[in-house]
Amino acid sequence: MPPSSLAEIIAEMEAQYDPAWAEPWDAVGLVCGDPALPVRKVLFAVDPVAVVVDEALEWGADLVVTHHPLYLRGTTTVAASTFKGRVIHRLIRNDVALYTAHTNADVASPGVSDALARAVGLSPDLRPLQPSADDPRRGLGRIGTLPSPMALREFAARAASGLPPTSLKVAGDPERTVETVAVSGGAGDSLLGAARAAGVDVFLTADLRHHPASEFMEAGGGPALVDASHWATEWPWLAEAAERLTSAMAAKGITVEARISDVVTDVWTTTDLD
Amino acid sequence: MPPSSLAEIIAEMEAQYDPAWAEPWDAVGLVCGDPALPVRKVLFAVDPVAVVVDEALEWGADLVVTHHPLYLRGTTTVAASTFKGRVIHRLIRNDVALYTAHTNADVASPGVSDALARAVGLSPDLRPLQPSADDPRRGLGRIGTLPSPMALREFAARAASGLPPTSLKVAGDPERTVETVAVSGGAGDSLLGAARAAGVDVFLTADLRHHPASEFMEAGGGPALVDASHWATEWPWLAEAAERLTSAMAAKGITVEARISDVVTDVWTTTDLD
Amino acid sequence: MPPSSLAEIIAEMEAQYDPAWAEPWDAVGLVCGDPALPVRKVLFAVDPVAVVVDEALEWGADLVVTHHPLYLRGTTTVAASTFKGRVIHRLIRNDVALYTAHTNADVASPGVSDALARAVGLSPDLRPLQPSADDPRRGLGRIGTLPSPMALREFAARAASGLPPTSLKVAGDPERTVETVAVSGGAGDSLLGAARAAGVDVFLTADLRHHPASEFMEAGGGPALVDASHWATEWPWLAEAAERLTSAMAAKGITVEARISDVVTDVWTTTDLD
Amino acid sequence: MPPSSLAEIIAEMEAQYDPAWAEPWDAVGLVCGDPALPVRKVLFAVDPVAVVVDEALEWGADLVVTHHPLYLRGTTTVAASTFKGRVIHRLIRNDVALYTAHTNADVASPGVSDALARAVGLSPDLRPLQPSADDPRRGLGRIGTLPSPMALREFAARAASGLPPTSLKVAGDPERTVETVAVSGGAGDSLLGAARAAGVDVFLTADLRHHPASEFMEAGGGPALVDASHWATEWPWLAEAAERLTSAMAAKGITVEARISDVVTDVWTTTDLD
Amino acid sequence: MPPSSLAEIIAEMEAQYDPAWAEPWDAVGLVCGDPALPVRKVLFAVDPVAVVVDEALEWGADLVVTHHPLYLRGTTTVAASTFKGRVIHRLIRNDVALYTAHTNADVASPGVSDALARAVGLSPDLRPLQPSADDPRRGLGRIGTLPSPMALREFAARAASGLPPTSLKVAGDPERTVETVAVSGGAGDSLLGAARAAGVDVFLTADLRHHPASEFMEAGGGPALVDASHWATEWPWLAEAAERLTSAMAAKGITVEARISDVVTDVWTTTDLD
Amino acid sequence: MPPSSLAEIIAEMEAQYDPAWAEPWDAVGLVCGDPALPVRKVLFAVDPVAVVVDEALEWGADLVVTHHPLYLRGTTTVAASTFKGRVIHRLIRNDVALYTAHTNADVASPGVSDALARAVGLSPDLRPLQPSADDPRRGLGRIGTLPSPMALREFAARAASGLPPTSLKVAGDPERTVETVAVSGGAGDSLLGAARAAGVDVFLTADLRHHPASEFMEAGGGPALVDASHWATEWPWLAEAAERLTSAMAAKGITVEARISDVVTDVWTTTDLD
Repeated sequence: MPPSSLAEIIAEMEAQYDPAWAEPWDAVGLVCGDPALPVRKVLFAVDPVAVVVDEALEWGADLVVTHHPLYLRGTTTVAASTFKGRVIHRLIRNDVALYTAHTNADVASPGVSDALARAVGLSPDLRPLQPSADDPRRGLGRIGTLPSPMALREFAARAASGLPPTSLKVAGDPERTVETVAVSGGAGDSLLGAARAAGVDVFLTADLRHHPASEFMEAGGGPALVDASHWATEWPWLAEAAERLTSAMAAKGITVEARISDVVTDVWTTTDLD
Repeated sequence: MPPSSLAEIIAEMEAQYDPAWAEPWDAVGLVCGDPALPVRKVLFAVDPVAVVVDEALEWGADLVVTHHPLYLRGTTTVAASTFKGRVIHRLIRNDVALYTAHTNADVASPGVSDALARAVGLSPDLRPLQPSADDPRRGLGRIGTLPSPMALREFAARAASGLPPTSLKVAGDPERTVETVAVSGGAGDSLLGAARAAGVDVFLTADLRHHPASEFMEAGGGPALVDASHWATEWPWLAEAAERLTSAMAAKGITVEARISDVVTDVWTTTDLD
Repeated sequence: MPPSSLAEIIAEMEAQYDPAWAEPWDAVGLVCGDPALPVRKVLFAVDPVAVVVDEALEWGADLVVTHHPLYLRGTTTVAASTFKGRVIHRLIRNDVALYTAHTNADVASPGVSDALARAVGLSPDLRPLQPSADDPRRGLGRIGTLPSPMALREFAARAASGLPPTSLKVAGDPERTVETVAVSGGAGDSLLGAARAAGVDVFLTADLRHHPASEFMEAGGGPALVDASHWATEWPWLAEAAERLTSAMAAKGITVEARISDVVTDVWTTTDLD
Repeated sequence: MPPSSLAEIIAEMEAQYDPAWAEPWDAVGLVCGDPALPVRKVLFAVDPVAVVVDEALEWGADLVVTHHPLYLRGTTTVAASTFKGRVIHRLIRNDVALYTAHTNADVASPGVSDALARAVGLSPDLRPLQPSADDPRRGLGRIGTLPSPMALREFAARAASGLPPTSLKVAGDPERTVETVAVSGGAGDSLLGAARAAGVDVFLTADLRHHPASEFMEAGGGPALVDASHWATEWPWLAEAAERLTSAMAAKGITVEARISDVVTDVWTTTDLD
Repeated sequence: MPPSSLAEIIAEMEAQYDPAWAEPWDAVGLVCGDPALPVRKVLFAVDPVAVVVDEALEWGADLVVTHHPLYLRGTTTVAASTFKGRVIHRLIRNDVALYTAHTNADVASPGVSDALARAVGLSPDLRPLQPSADDPRRGLGRIGTLPSPMALREFAARAASGLPPTSLKVAGDPERTVETVAVSGGAGDSLLGAARAAGVDVFLTADLRHHPASEFMEAGGGPALVDASHWATEWPWLAEAAERLTSAMAAKGITVEARISDVVTDVWTTTDLD
Repeated sequence: MPPSSLAEIIAEMEAQYDPAWAEPWDAVGLVCGDPALPVRKVLFAVDPVAVVVDEALEWGADLVVTHHPLYLRGTTTVAASTFKGRVIHRLIRNDVALYTAHTNADVASPGVSDALARAVGLSPDLRPLQPSADDPRRGLGRIGTLPSPMALREFAARAASGLPPTSLKVAGDPERTVETVAVSGGAGDSLLGAARAAGVDVFLTADLRHHPASEFMEAGGGPALVDASHWATEWPWLAEAAERLTSAMAAKGITVEARISDVVTDVWTTTDLD
């Protein structure tokens, strides 16, 4: 059985995560690599950073799929005197391609927030927090329910144990009972209004800043907030995306080996302060 | 000795924190209240929120001075059907004024980051991280030195013990030796470039998000990062501002009683997860 | 019978003057006041100015409804050191609410220009001068007919006698016969094109400036112009709005007392020059 | 003595009213005509309208100088199917040039507001209301003093008698005593702030609208307002400009005949309403 | 039989080249002239330049119809001290009107590119290269086929012989076989994408610049390019427009004499360099 | 003698063509490659296109210096599925760097237009056509004189023989005598005004389009125009830049081998039409 070409892998990725679904400001798709080359091994990671390139080269990956774009804003240089250019040079010299599925993976169904919802133990019947205008079955964030009502502090503990290593902050009364939950992988400032409108008990997301969170809580009447690390909320999606790709290729008679990067690329390391 | 009028208090505050120093997008100065009324008791707080109004009314404050504006963007209504309007109604009905010193207090010398620097134990010879164009003795952030070199993890522990209750996250090798330190109260994303250019060993600030922090660390060659809570990094300034006001008024023969709010208005509460 | 709450009054006002009809740049609705408080007495006025507040406090009003917004553009302060802030402080201290119906009252049917049309004696079958895109039965301005053709100078005299005290200026041949009339309360520069397109004989409005009016007349073939004072063209609406509110509340079994402000807030006073 | 060429007339006009002084949005200078043609007769008028062209053709003018531009905004057609194009066609067919001195004449010294100040009887020592940034001896508006203090109503009567036929409206207490006066020919909304800052007793200008005037009076502490017709406040300048041109040309030994248009092009006609 | 008025000619032109079809940035229609005057002789030309005015006056034209606007961007002056103003003065003084049909003639069917397609020998079954959104039967450019396949160099020679005097440049392999052809009169940079999408063998247009053409060819897989002079690609339309106008007027019983300007207004003259 | 590193070459290039001189919209400097690698052979070319990469790989170049940027506008992908990405992949895989000196080389002294001036035989005392604001000795374009006056047609022939293969178009009377000459390599539309102001007899540049050139000639009183191919006007600079680089490196004791690309990357090929 011949190996798959990069072009075939891309076709399958785009069948699942249509680039047309990405936000207008986003930059998804193939970043470097030659669609005609064969692809046997695919590494899935959140961030296109140096330690992920190390892992790809050590393992012998032909393709790295990341959630975050290397160049979200356009560049006029990939010189190796820049850290992003070094990523490009190392990948091209070793015939490793880089492919990004970002906001198109966020809004896909299933997508990034479905995996997050499962990781924190929500029931499987999920619906979008902010449905896409063109297809309300897709969208940003997901809303689901816990198996039974619990205190906010219990939910936070449950989230911490279901996610990879993460910081975790809570806003709201720790003893408040929560049952309906909204989750959204990555920075969630812009979804605070949707979370209030949805009438959920708690909203789990990342990168919330003081002012929007403080004004949200002062306004009152809305859900509690749980803020985890950006990386930890998006990592659960990798395994799902890898499984979907390898299964789909296998159904076409093509074997692709996938690996989930286990390098924590959360910028924040934990220190033993206490 | 007659009490001070609000007008006199404002004149003294503006002598120390000139409104002309505020950023063009900022909204500083008197938010509500009548300059002709007497002021005997002044409450200093970070955020103009409901619990701070509770404290002001209980204590019998005539004036609340906050760091954060109530209306950073303009409003066309102060109706009591909004949470900000409720703040306005409660204050006006009880003849309590509200006054804000925000980015003009950030860049003053001494200002918000001087107090933060002292709180985490930097030596007293501080200089601005990003000097103001019109007067380089003022500016955003401060640069100082620790009494002796120490591991990054030790500095983080020192910061945690010097600040009021706060979350604390670290990026960089915990064993890295640090001695020169940049600090900036409040959200610090926009000062990452200045911190790198300053050649310091570590930059302590708040509200750093994944993408700017991750790209900053990947670029390499710069300082380690310590991210504390927004509220905790600004709170140390309150005592200093109160002291400067009461001393200056006393020098004019006027007694003003000041109080530092001890209500934690950090939106994030700590939960016992472990 | 219990008094009405402010919330109930607002609900009725919005049933008649839907805030969604207001222009995007406008600022309508509740400006200050608490929706939970009772409302027994409502004062209707064109402008939210100091003499109107005087009248409201003397009469014991619980609510002032004005046509013009206090803050058309957003403010970051309601300090009593500003004249608008003094309005806010006096109203809040006396538990008087302020509510605005502006461009939503202009386009309502019946609305501001219906009352103006009646005041100058047009027949009751009126149609909008510039119909709203979403519902052509509403819109800016009204077109109607006089009971019989008359000279332009006669129409001007008729308008002067039907309106409260006003300056009045006329452009066009005073002997021209007019029968179809367009009217629009408030500043009418932007409706000159609609008035020409409507084929009417005369257009009565306010605040017309030299250049648009001069170019309009030079272009020829259009209606004559009558320019009255801004205040005088909007005042007739107050009685109608008051009547509609009290009747609707009475139908619900609630008594609300209404009063039409008789303070002339036209900025222009007449002097005896001759 | 040979007649002057249009080019020579323009050179003299531009020596007195430098086009570089005009606002960036303005359109001054030669509108139509051939600089090589002789000019014996020059008609001065406020507006480039049909009745002024009638007068120019009847009198045999070679040049019409107006204060207002024919095309303030650019046009892509001068077809005779437009009223402005008809002006162009009639002028070109009869070899009559059209020249505009607008905001460059406003800020010149002496300029439009000097003539207005004299017309209402101010003392000759005038200074700009809003000095030009590049030369504070020039600028918009003029400030002067009355020969003796008088009631506002007396000043208004004095203004009415010193100006050509005009409407006249007053804001402020008619019995208020006024002595220092600011005047500005044409629409004066944008100079209200300067008039307040100047600390004058009364500001005479034109085309003031309800909202800016009402907010100005509500703010309190500023001058009274007198609003005359746009045309009437600019007409006094014509005689002065004509005199300056003919004198300057005579000094070069060239005879130019000037005429001040006596057609009232104020769009507003007076009707006998009483 | 009475002569036609300019108004009747314009009505017929607009029936064929509806001004509503013009691009929003364009300026089409009557530039000068009086619609009431009679029109017996009409000169058609590409550019409204001095030599075309010479020809119009010598021949005694009543109307000049050009493809290019005299004032594409608005002007505030038509003074004879400018070269465009001299065109206006000469035309108005001699009662000659000027009328423009530009992008409305480009997208008409038949329009400018139909005539170009015929001039270079394409078969008569043409379709738009970039169909108009509101009516796909109209649009910019035309696509057609050659009677038989030929080398690119042969097609270029054919184009050179079918057009009036023109420079001609070719990009692509001269021996490449071409059969399907896109043509667009005037500057064609903005249609390169449409030409590639259409899958034609060659695209003939004008005013192509180095960078867009170079990137187009480097991208590969698209048509060859032929760049002729702007004037030469639009000139063929003149005869067709003249024939359509005179026929349509004749059908109404009105005789109009038309003439195609034979002055080459291509700015580029050929020199004998070899 | 050790080879030079890319970093040293870049330092020398930037000493001669300071990146700070580039236009704000430009993208100059290192596009790909590793500054730490050695550089022995440098290929100079106008365009970073496939045939230039072919030449670089065949010759064994370590660095390609081009005048035109590969990515003038930013890109978010260098995938080999794009023609620009293929350039990047081929260069990086073969350890060939790409460096651009564009508008910084245009305004340098000597720069691109100096070489062009020499190629067409102007005397060596040249001055900028549009001097740079910060240093008037640099700037866009050059002005010089011919050894003796000649007919425009003779100058055009001289230019054709001095340049590499090029199309050549002339606007103006071929027999006009010319002596002072302005030249500017690359697209010259934006310098037409400067060329008129300079009072030269002829302006040689590239990529002039019909409308600006036609309006320029109609305005009259300015220079004749000669339009050559974009590529041909910039190619002469390559030899000079190569010579300056190798000399400067030799002076430091470092041998660098330079080669001028002899591939014509003008998009326009000549066909034998006659």
